[in-house]
Amino acid sequence: MKTTGISGTFYGVGVGPGDRELMSVRADRLLRGAKHIAYFRKAGRAGRARGIIEGMLRADVTEFAMEYPVTTEIPLDDPRYNETLSAFYAGCAAHILGILGRGEDVVAPCEGDPFFYGSFMHLHARLAGVVPVEVVPAVTGMSGAWAATGVPITWGDDVLTVLMGTLPEHELARRMADTDALVVMKVGRNIGKVKAALKAAGRFDDAWIVAFATMEGESVRRLAEAEDTAMPYFSTILVHGQGRRP
Amino acid sequence: MKTTGISGTFYGVGVGPGDRELMSVRADRLLRGAKHIAYFRKAGRAGRARGIIEGMLRADVTEFAMEYPVTTEIPLDDPRYNETLSAFYAGCAAHILGILGRGEDVVAPCEGDPFFYGSFMHLHARLAGVVPVEVVPAVTGMSGAWAATGVPITWGDDVLTVLMGTLPEHELARRMADTDALVVMKVGRNIGKVKAALKAAGRFDDAWIVAFATMEGESVRRLAEAEDTAMPYFSTILVHGQGRRP
Repeated sequence: MKTTGISGTFYGVGVGPGDRELMSVRADRLLRGAKHIAYFRKAGRAGRARGIIEGMLRADVTEFAMEYPVTTEIPLDDPRYNETLSAFYAGCAAHILGILGRGEDVVAPCEGDPFFYGSFMHLHARLAGVVPVEVVPAVTGMSGAWAATGVPITWGDDVLTVLMGTLPEHELARRMADTDALVVMKVGRNIGKVKAALKAAGRFDDAWIVAFATMEGESVRRLAEAEDTAMPYFSTILVHGQGRRP
Repeated sequence: MKTTGISGTFYGVGVGPGDRELMSVRADRLLRGAKHIAYFRKAGRAGRARGIIEGMLRADVTEFAMEYPVTTEIPLDDPRYNETLSAFYAGCAAHILGILGRGEDVVAPCEGDPFFYGSFMHLHARLAGVVPVEVVPAVTGMSGAWAATGVPITWGDDVLTVLMGTLPEHELARRMADTDALVVMKVGRNIGKVKAALKAAGRFDDAWIVAFATMEGESVRRLAEAEDTAMPYFSTILVHGQGRRP
Protein backbone atom coordinates (compact mmCIF):
# COMPACT_ATOMS: atom_id res chain seq x y z
CA MET A 1 0.00 0.00 0.00
CA LYS A 2 3.10 2.24 0.26
CA THR A 3 2.86 4.99 -2.30
CA THR A 4 5.89 6.17 -4.17
CA GLY A 5 6.75 9.71 -5.08
CA ILE A 6 4.56 12.70 -4.43
CA SER A 7 1.64 12.52 -2.06
CA GLY A 8 -0.81 15.01 -0.67
CA THR A 9 -1.39 15.24 3.08
CA PHE A 10 -4.32 13.63 4.85
CA TYR A 11 -5.63 15.99 7.53
CA GLY A 12 -7.78 14.75 10.40
CA VAL A 13 -9.35 17.96 11.56
CA GLY A 14 -11.41 18.13 14.72
CA VAL A 15 -14.36 20.48 14.35
CA GLY A 16 -15.28 20.47 18.04
CA PRO A 17 -18.59 19.82 19.77
CA GLY A 18 -20.91 21.69 17.43
CA ASP A 19 -20.67 25.47 17.68
CA ARG A 20 -18.65 26.47 14.65
CA GLU A 21 -16.90 29.25 16.54
CA LEU A 22 -15.35 26.61 18.81
CA MET A 23 -13.41 25.24 15.86
CA SER A 24 -9.72 26.10 16.02
CA VAL A 25 -8.23 28.79 13.84
CA ARG A 26 -6.27 26.05 12.04
CA ALA A 27 -9.33 23.86 11.46
CA ASP A 28 -11.24 26.86 10.15
CA ARG A 29 -8.43 27.69 7.73
CA LEU A 30 -7.93 24.11 6.52
CA LEU A 31 -11.64 23.52 5.94
CA ARG A 32 -12.25 26.79 4.13
CA GLY A 33 -9.32 26.08 1.82
CA ALA A 34 -9.99 22.38 1.25
CA LYS A 35 -10.30 21.09 -2.30
CA HIS A 36 -11.26 17.59 -1.09
CA ILE A 37 -13.10 16.66 2.08
CA ALA A 38 -14.01 13.20 3.40
CA TYR A 39 -16.36 12.54 6.30
CA PHE A 40 -18.33 9.73 7.92
CA ARG A 41 -22.08 9.70 8.17
CA LYS A 42 -24.97 7.35 8.72
CA ALA A 43 -26.65 6.32 5.49
CA GLY A 44 -29.41 8.75 4.65
CA ARG A 45 -28.17 11.43 7.08
CA ALA A 46 -26.35 14.67 6.36
CA GLY A 47 -23.57 13.75 8.78
CA ARG A 48 -22.75 15.48 12.06
CA ALA A 49 -19.30 16.76 11.11
CA ARG A 50 -20.61 17.86 7.71
CA GLY A 51 -23.46 19.70 9.40
CA ILE A 52 -21.08 21.67 11.59
CA ILE A 53 -19.05 22.93 8.62
CA GLU A 54 -22.05 23.74 6.41
CA GLY A 55 -21.51 27.03 4.63
CA MET A 56 -17.72 27.10 5.13
CA LEU A 57 -16.58 25.19 2.08
CA ARG A 58 -15.24 26.25 -1.31
CA ALA A 59 -17.82 26.17 -4.08
CA ASP A 60 -15.67 23.71 -6.05
CA VAL A 61 -14.91 21.32 -3.16
CA THR A 62 -15.25 17.60 -3.85
CA GLU A 63 -16.97 15.67 -1.08
CA PHE A 64 -16.45 12.01 -0.20
CA ALA A 65 -19.24 10.95 2.14
CA MET A 66 -18.30 7.69 3.85
CA GLU A 67 -21.54 5.98 4.84
CA TYR A 68 -21.33 3.33 7.54
CA PRO A 69 -22.49 -0.02 6.18
CA VAL A 70 -23.72 -1.15 9.59
CA THR A 71 -24.45 0.52 12.83
CA THR A 72 -26.82 -1.53 14.91
CA GLU A 73 -28.09 -4.29 12.60
CA ILE A 74 -25.26 -6.69 13.44
CA PRO A 75 -24.32 -7.34 17.11
CA LEU A 76 -20.88 -6.07 18.14
CA ASP A 77 -19.70 -9.57 19.02
CA ASP A 78 -20.66 -11.08 15.66
CA PRO A 79 -17.50 -11.58 13.54
CA ARG A 80 -19.36 -10.16 10.55
CA TYR A 81 -19.49 -6.81 12.33
CA ASN A 82 -15.73 -6.39 12.31
CA GLU A 83 -15.36 -7.91 8.82
CA THR A 84 -17.92 -5.56 7.33
CA LEU A 85 -16.51 -2.48 9.01
CA SER A 86 -12.94 -3.46 8.22
CA ALA A 87 -13.73 -3.78 4.50
CA PHE A 88 -15.56 -0.45 4.66
CA TYR A 89 -12.63 1.40 6.23
CA ALA A 90 -10.20 -0.21 3.77
CA GLY A 91 -12.34 0.99 0.87
CA CYS A 92 -12.51 4.50 2.28
CA ALA A 93 -8.74 4.56 2.80
CA ALA A 94 -8.14 3.36 -0.76
CA HIS A 95 -10.33 6.10 -2.19
CA ILE A 96 -8.54 8.77 -0.14
CA LEU A 97 -5.18 7.32 -1.11
CA GLY A 98 -6.18 7.74 -4.76
CA ILE A 99 -6.65 11.48 -4.27
CA LEU A 100 -3.47 11.84 -2.20
CA GLY A 101 -1.57 9.97 -4.92
CA ARG A 102 -2.38 12.77 -7.32
CA GLY A 103 -0.55 15.11 -4.96
CA GLU A 104 -3.70 16.67 -3.56
CA ASP A 105 -4.62 17.07 0.10
CA VAL A 106 -7.70 15.57 1.71
CA VAL A 107 -9.26 17.14 4.80
CA ALA A 108 -11.38 14.91 7.04
CA PRO A 109 -13.60 16.93 9.39
CA CYS A 110 -14.31 14.97 12.60
CA GLU A 111 -16.79 15.86 15.33
CA GLY A 112 -15.02 16.47 18.63
CA ASP A 113 -11.33 15.56 18.78
CA PRO A 114 -10.08 13.11 16.11
CA PHE A 115 -8.06 10.93 18.53
CA PHE A 116 -10.75 10.70 21.24
CA TYR A 117 -13.15 7.85 20.38
CA GLY A 118 -13.34 9.05 16.76
CA SER A 119 -14.05 7.14 13.55
CA PHE A 120 -11.17 9.02 11.94
CA MET A 121 -8.80 6.76 13.88
CA HIS A 122 -9.75 3.84 11.63
CA LEU A 123 -8.48 5.78 8.62
CA HIS A 124 -5.47 6.98 10.57
CA ALA A 125 -4.58 3.38 11.41
CA ARG A 126 -4.61 2.54 7.70
CA LEU A 127 -2.86 5.64 6.30
CA ALA A 128 -0.37 6.88 8.93
CA GLY A 129 3.11 5.80 7.89
CA VAL A 130 1.89 5.31 4.31
CA VAL A 131 1.24 8.95 3.46
CA PRO A 132 1.73 12.20 5.38
CA VAL A 133 -1.02 12.47 7.99
CA GLU A 134 -1.65 15.48 10.23
CA VAL A 135 -4.09 15.59 13.10
CA VAL A 136 -5.57 18.83 14.41
CA PRO A 137 -6.82 18.34 17.99
CA ALA A 138 -10.07 20.03 18.96
CA VAL A 139 -12.50 20.82 21.73
CA THR A 140 -13.97 17.46 22.75
CA GLY A 141 -17.69 16.85 23.00
CA MET A 142 -17.27 16.43 26.75
CA SER A 143 -15.65 19.87 27.11
CA GLY A 144 -18.61 21.31 25.23
CA ALA A 145 -20.93 19.46 27.59
CA TRP A 146 -19.35 20.62 30.84
CA ALA A 147 -19.12 24.19 29.53
CA ALA A 148 -22.86 23.95 28.80
CA THR A 149 -23.59 23.05 32.44
CA GLY A 150 -21.81 26.20 33.61
CA VAL A 151 -20.01 24.19 36.29
CA PRO A 152 -16.31 23.19 36.35
CA ILE A 153 -15.74 19.47 35.91
CA THR A 154 -12.53 18.94 37.90
CA TRP A 155 -10.71 20.68 40.75
CA GLY A 156 -7.43 20.09 42.55
CA ASP A 157 -6.63 16.37 42.70
CA ASP A 158 -9.98 15.15 41.33
CA VAL A 159 -9.89 11.87 39.42
CA LEU A 160 -11.83 12.02 36.14
CA THR A 161 -13.21 8.81 34.64
CA VAL A 162 -14.64 8.65 31.12
CA LEU A 163 -16.95 5.70 30.47
CA MET A 164 -18.89 4.50 27.44
CA GLY A 165 -22.56 3.68 28.05
CA THR A 166 -21.98 0.48 26.09
CA LEU A 167 -20.11 -1.14 29.02
CA PRO A 168 -21.90 -3.71 31.22
CA GLU A 169 -23.98 -2.26 34.04
CA HIS A 170 -21.94 -3.75 36.89
CA GLU A 171 -18.75 -2.39 35.32
CA LEU A 172 -20.29 1.05 34.95
CA ALA A 173 -21.54 1.05 38.54
CA ARG A 174 -18.21 -0.09 39.97
CA ARG A 175 -16.31 2.65 38.18
CA MET A 176 -18.91 5.35 38.82
CA ALA A 177 -18.60 4.70 42.56
CA ASP A 178 -14.81 4.96 42.42
CA THR A 179 -14.18 8.35 40.83
CA ASP A 180 -14.56 12.02 41.68
CA ALA A 181 -15.65 13.45 38.32
CA LEU A 182 -17.42 11.36 35.73
CA VAL A 183 -18.25 11.57 32.04
CA VAL A 184 -20.44 8.97 30.32
CA MET A 185 -20.60 9.05 26.53
CA LYS A 186 -22.49 6.91 23.99
CA VAL A 187 -25.55 7.13 26.17
CA GLY A 188 -28.40 6.87 23.64
CA ARG A 189 -30.27 3.60 24.03
CA ASN A 190 -28.08 2.69 27.00
CA ILE A 191 -29.79 5.34 29.11
CA GLY A 192 -31.75 2.85 31.25
CA LYS A 193 -28.63 0.87 32.08
CA VAL A 194 -26.59 4.00 32.73
CA LYS A 195 -29.26 5.39 35.08
CA ALA A 196 -29.41 2.11 36.99
CA ALA A 197 -25.63 2.06 37.32
CA LEU A 198 -25.58 5.67 38.57
CA LYS A 199 -28.19 4.79 41.19
CA ALA A 200 -26.27 1.71 42.30
CA ALA A 201 -23.15 3.86 42.60
CA GLY A 202 -24.91 6.61 44.57
CA ARG A 203 -24.18 9.19 41.87
CA PHE A 204 -27.59 9.56 40.24
CA ASP A 205 -28.68 12.67 42.16
CA ASP A 206 -25.53 14.54 41.16
CA ALA A 207 -25.68 13.63 37.46
CA TRP A 208 -26.43 16.00 34.59
CA ILE A 209 -27.35 15.10 31.03
CA VAL A 210 -26.41 17.31 28.10
CA ALA A 211 -27.64 16.83 24.54
CA PHE A 212 -26.54 18.82 21.51
CA ALA A 213 -23.97 20.72 23.57
CA THR A 214 -23.02 24.14 22.16
CA MET A 215 -25.37 23.76 19.19
CA GLU A 216 -28.97 24.42 18.23
CA GLY A 217 -31.30 22.41 20.42
CA GLU A 218 -28.83 22.29 23.34
CA SER A 219 -30.45 20.72 26.37
CA VAL A 220 -28.88 20.75 29.85
CA ARG A 221 -30.74 19.03 32.69
CA ARG A 222 -30.28 17.30 35.99
CA LEU A 223 -30.60 13.63 35.08
CA ALA A 224 -33.21 13.16 37.82
CA GLU A 225 -35.42 15.60 35.93
CA ALA A 226 -34.94 13.92 32.54
CA GLU A 227 -37.64 11.32 32.28
CA ASP A 228 -36.99 10.41 28.64
CA THR A 229 -36.51 6.72 28.06
CA ALA A 230 -34.31 7.33 25.01
CA MET A 231 -31.66 9.98 24.50
CA PRO A 232 -29.75 11.10 21.43
CA TYR A 233 -26.68 8.89 20.92
CA PHE A 234 -24.38 11.84 21.46
CA SER A 235 -25.87 12.79 24.82
CA THR A 236 -23.29 13.13 27.56
CA ILE A 237 -23.82 12.46 31.26
CA LEU A 238 -21.64 14.33 33.73
CA VAL A 239 -20.99 14.26 37.46
CA HIS A 240 -18.85 17.22 38.47
CA GLY A 241 -15.87 16.81 40.78
CA GLN A 242 -15.93 18.51 44.17
CA GLY A 243 -12.19 18.68 44.80
CA ARG A 244 -10.02 21.08 46.73
CA ARG A 245 -10.86 24.72 46.32
CA PRO A 246 -9.80 27.63 48.52
CA MET B 1 -20.99 41.52 46.39
CA LYS B 2 -24.06 41.69 44.14
CA THR B 3 -23.67 44.54 41.71
CA THR B 4 -26.58 46.65 40.68
CA GLY B 5 -27.29 48.03 37.26
CA ILE B 6 -24.98 47.70 34.29
CA SER B 7 -22.17 45.19 34.25
CA GLY B 8 -19.66 44.05 31.69
CA THR B 9 -19.20 40.34 31.00
CA PHE B 10 -16.41 38.25 32.47
CA TYR B 11 -15.10 35.85 29.82
CA GLY B 12 -13.11 32.78 30.75
CA VAL B 13 -11.43 31.96 27.47
CA GLY B 14 -9.49 28.75 26.96
CA VAL B 15 -6.42 29.32 24.80
CA GLY B 16 -5.64 25.64 24.34
CA PRO B 17 -2.43 23.70 24.87
CA GLY B 18 0.06 26.16 23.40
CA ASP B 19 -0.05 26.41 19.61
CA ARG B 20 -1.90 29.64 18.96
CA GLU B 21 -3.62 28.21 15.90
CA LEU B 22 -5.35 25.68 18.17
CA MET B 23 -7.24 28.51 19.84
CA SER B 24 -10.89 28.61 18.85
CA VAL B 25 -12.18 31.17 16.41
CA ARG B 26 -14.19 32.68 19.28
CA ALA B 27 -11.20 32.83 21.64
CA ASP B 28 -9.13 34.45 18.91
CA ARG B 29 -11.81 37.07 18.30
CA LEU B 30 -12.42 37.83 22.00
CA LEU B 31 -8.73 38.16 22.79
CA ARG B 32 -7.90 40.36 19.81
CA GLY B 33 -10.78 42.66 20.71
CA ALA B 34 -10.25 42.73 24.48
CA LYS B 35 -9.86 46.06 26.22
CA HIS B 36 -9.10 44.38 29.57
CA ILE B 37 -7.41 41.04 30.16
CA ALA B 38 -6.70 39.25 33.44
CA TYR B 39 -4.49 36.19 33.81
CA PHE B 40 -2.71 34.15 36.44
CA ARG B 41 1.03 33.72 36.58
CA LYS B 42 3.80 32.77 38.94
CA ALA B 43 5.56 35.77 40.45
CA GLY B 44 8.44 36.79 38.25
CA ARG B 45 7.22 34.80 35.24
CA ALA B 46 5.56 36.01 32.05
CA GLY B 47 2.67 33.58 32.54
CA ARG B 48 1.80 30.61 30.34
CA ALA B 49 -1.56 31.84 29.07
CA ARG B 50 -0.07 35.31 28.51
CA GLY B 51 2.80 33.76 26.54
CA ILE B 52 0.41 31.94 24.20
CA ILE B 53 -1.44 35.14 23.29
CA GLU B 54 1.67 37.30 22.89
CA GLY B 55 1.33 39.53 19.85
CA MET B 56 -2.46 39.19 19.56
CA LEU B 57 -3.57 42.01 21.83
CA ARG B 58 -4.74 45.54 21.20
CA ALA B 59 -2.07 48.19 21.72
CA ASP B 60 -4.24 49.90 24.34
CA VAL B 61 -5.22 46.76 26.30
CA THR B 62 -5.01 46.95 30.08
CA GLU B 63 -3.48 43.87 31.71
CA PHE B 64 -4.19 42.55 35.18
CA ALA B 65 -1.53 39.98 36.03
CA MET B 66 -2.69 37.90 39.00
CA GLU B 67 0.46 36.58 40.69
CA TYR B 68 0.03 33.56 42.94
CA PRO B 69 1.08 34.44 46.49
CA VAL B 70 2.13 30.86 47.23
CA THR B 71 2.91 27.82 45.19
CA THR B 72 5.07 25.42 47.09
CA GLU B 73 6.29 27.30 50.16
CA ILE B 74 3.30 26.29 52.32
CA PRO B 75 2.22 22.63 52.45
CA LEU B 76 -1.19 21.90 50.91
CA ASP B 77 -2.56 20.60 54.22
CA ASP B 78 -1.54 23.71 56.19
CA PRO B 79 -4.64 25.88 56.82
CA ARG B 80 -2.61 28.95 55.87
CA TYR B 81 -2.40 27.60 52.32
CA ASN B 82 -6.14 27.83 51.78
CA GLU B 83 -6.45 31.09 53.69
CA THR B 84 -3.74 32.79 51.66
CA LEU B 85 -5.10 31.56 48.33
CA SER B 86 -8.66 32.36 49.27
CA ALA B 87 -7.75 35.97 50.10
CA PHE B 88 -5.78 36.18 46.87
CA TYR B 89 -8.69 34.98 44.70
CA ALA B 90 -11.09 37.29 46.55
CA GLY B 91 -8.80 40.24 45.82
CA CYS B 92 -8.54 39.28 42.15
CA ALA B 93 -12.32 38.93 41.89
CA ALA B 94 -12.84 42.33 43.52
CA HIS B 95 -10.47 44.01 41.07
CA ILE B 96 -12.22 42.39 38.08
CA LEU B 97 -15.60 43.31 39.54
CA GLY B 98 -14.46 46.94 39.64
CA ILE B 99 -13.84 46.92 35.88
CA LEU B 100 -17.08 45.05 35.14
CA GLY B 101 -18.96 47.56 37.28
CA ARG B 102 -17.93 50.31 34.86
CA GLY B 103 -19.77 48.33 32.15
CA GLU B 104 -16.58 47.03 30.55
CA ASP B 105 -15.80 43.41 29.71
CA VAL B 106 -12.83 41.48 31.08
CA VAL B 107 -11.33 38.56 29.20
CA ALA B 108 -9.37 35.96 31.17
CA PRO B 109 -7.16 33.81 28.93
CA CYS B 110 -6.66 30.35 30.48
CA GLU B 111 -4.24 27.66 29.33
CA GLY B 112 -6.09 24.53 28.22
CA ASP B 113 -9.83 24.43 28.95
CA PRO B 114 -11.07 26.80 31.70
CA PHE B 115 -13.27 24.19 33.46
CA PHE B 116 -10.70 21.37 33.41
CA TYR B 117 -8.39 21.77 36.45
CA GLY B 118 -8.03 25.49 35.75
CA SER B 119 -7.29 28.40 38.12
CA PHE B 120 -10.02 30.35 36.35
CA MET B 121 -12.56 28.23 38.24
CA HIS B 122 -11.65 30.04 41.47
CA LEU B 123 -12.74 33.33 39.90
CA HIS B 124 -15.77 31.68 38.33
CA ALA B 125 -16.83 30.40 41.76
CA ARG B 126 -16.71 33.98 43.09
CA LEU B 127 -18.26 35.84 40.14
CA ALA B 128 -20.79 33.50 38.47
CA GLY B 129 -24.28 34.52 39.53
CA VAL B 130 -22.97 37.95 40.54
CA VAL B 131 -22.12 39.27 37.08
CA PRO B 132 -22.52 37.79 33.57
CA VAL B 133 -19.86 35.14 33.07
CA GLU B 134 -19.20 33.28 29.82
CA VAL B 135 -16.84 30.35 29.43
CA VAL B 136 -15.27 29.42 26.10
CA PRO B 137 -14.17 25.75 26.15
CA ALA B 138 -10.90 24.88 24.47
CA VAL B 139 -8.54 22.14 23.41
CA THR B 140 -7.24 20.62 26.65
CA GLY B 141 -3.57 20.14 27.35
CA MET B 142 -4.14 16.38 27.24
CA SER B 143 -5.64 16.56 23.74
CA GLY B 144 -2.55 18.49 22.67
CA ALA B 145 -0.39 15.80 24.26
CA TRP B 146 -2.04 12.82 22.62
CA ALA B 147 -2.08 14.60 19.26
CA ALA B 148 1.67 15.11 19.71
CA THR B 149 2.23 11.37 20.17
CA GLY B 150 0.54 10.70 16.82
CA VAL B 151 -1.44 7.85 18.40
CA PRO B 152 -5.17 7.83 19.25
CA ILE B 153 -5.87 7.81 22.99
CA THR B 154 -9.17 5.89 23.13
CA TRP B 155 -11.03 3.37 20.95
CA GLY B 156 -14.40 1.66 21.19
CA ASP B 157 -15.34 1.03 24.82
CA ASP B 158 -12.01 2.08 26.33
CA VAL B 159 -12.14 3.56 29.82
CA LEU B 160 -10.09 6.73 30.20
CA THR B 161 -8.78 7.76 33.62
CA VAL B 162 -7.25 11.16 34.28
CA LEU B 163 -5.03 11.33 37.38
CA MET B 164 -3.03 14.09 39.03
CA GLY B 165 0.56 13.22 39.89
CA THR B 166 -0.07 14.78 43.31
CA LEU B 167 -2.10 11.73 44.46
CA PRO B 168 -0.50 9.13 46.79
CA GLU B 169 1.55 6.46 45.03
CA HIS B 170 -0.67 3.53 46.07
CA GLU B 171 -3.72 5.39 44.82
CA LEU B 172 -2.04 6.14 41.51
CA ALA B 173 -0.92 2.54 41.08
CA ARG B 174 -4.34 1.10 41.90
CA ARG B 175 -6.08 3.31 39.35
CA MET B 176 -3.39 2.93 36.67
CA ALA B 177 -3.86 -0.84 36.82
CA ASP B 178 -7.63 -0.54 36.45
CA THR B 179 -8.05 1.53 33.27
CA ASP B 180 -7.57 1.16 29.54
CA ALA B 181 -6.29 4.60 28.61
CA LEU B 182 -4.51 6.84 31.10
CA VAL B 183 -3.54 10.49 31.40
CA VAL B 184 -1.40 11.76 34.29
CA MET B 185 -1.10 15.51 34.71
CA LYS B 186 0.78 17.68 37.23
CA VAL B 187 3.77 15.40 36.84
CA GLY B 188 6.69 17.79 37.53
CA ARG B 189 8.40 16.88 40.80
CA ASN B 190 6.07 13.92 41.22
CA ILE B 191 7.81 12.10 38.38
CA GLY B 192 9.60 9.59 40.63
CA LYS B 193 6.36 8.63 42.38
CA VAL B 194 4.44 8.48 39.11
CA LYS B 195 7.08 6.22 37.53
CA ALA B 196 7.04 3.89 40.52
CA ALA B 197 3.25 3.71 40.38
CA LEU B 198 3.29 2.95 36.65
CA LYS B 199 5.78 0.14 37.26
CA ALA B 200 3.69 -1.28 40.10
CA ALA B 201 0.65 -1.19 37.81
CA GLY B 202 2.44 -2.84 34.90
CA ARG B 203 1.91 0.20 32.66
CA PHE B 204 5.39 1.72 32.64
CA ASP B 205 6.54 0.18 29.35
CA ASP B 206 3.51 1.55 27.51
CA ALA B 207 3.76 5.08 28.89
CA TRP B 208 4.73 8.19 26.97
CA ILE B 209 5.73 11.57 28.35
CA VAL B 210 4.99 14.79 26.52
CA ALA B 211 6.32 18.19 27.51
CA PHE B 212 5.41 21.51 25.91
CA ALA B 213 2.84 19.81 23.66
CA THR B 214 2.08 21.71 20.42
CA MET B 215 4.53 24.51 21.28
CA GLU B 216 8.17 25.41 20.89
CA GLY B 217 10.34 22.88 22.67
CA GLU B 218 7.77 20.08 22.30
CA SER B 219 9.21 16.79 23.53
CA VAL B 220 7.54 13.40 22.98
CA ARG B 221 9.23 10.30 24.36
CA ARG B 222 8.56 6.82 25.64
CA LEU B 223 8.76 7.24 29.38
CA ALA B 224 11.24 4.35 29.60
CA GLU B 225 13.62 6.45 27.50
CA ALA B 226 13.18 9.61 29.59
CA GLU B 227 15.81 9.44 32.32
CA ASP B 228 15.22 12.94 33.68
CA THR B 229 14.63 13.04 37.39
CA ALA B 230 12.57 16.25 37.10
CA MET B 231 10.05 17.20 34.44
CA PRO B 232 8.30 20.47 33.68
CA TYR B 233 5.17 20.82 35.85
CA PHE B 234 2.98 20.76 32.77
CA SER B 235 4.37 17.47 31.42
CA THR B 236 1.70 14.91 30.63
CA ILE B 237 2.07 11.14 30.83
CA LEU B 238 -0.11 9.03 28.56
CA VAL B 239 -0.89 5.36 28.11
CA HIS B 240 -2.94 4.81 24.96
CA GLY B 241 -6.03 2.61 24.98
CA GLN B 242 -6.03 -0.53 22.82
CA GLY B 243 -9.79 -0.95 22.48
CA ARG B 244 -11.92 -2.46 19.75
CA ARG B 245 -10.93 -1.61 16.21
CA PRO B 246 -11.98 -3.34 13.03
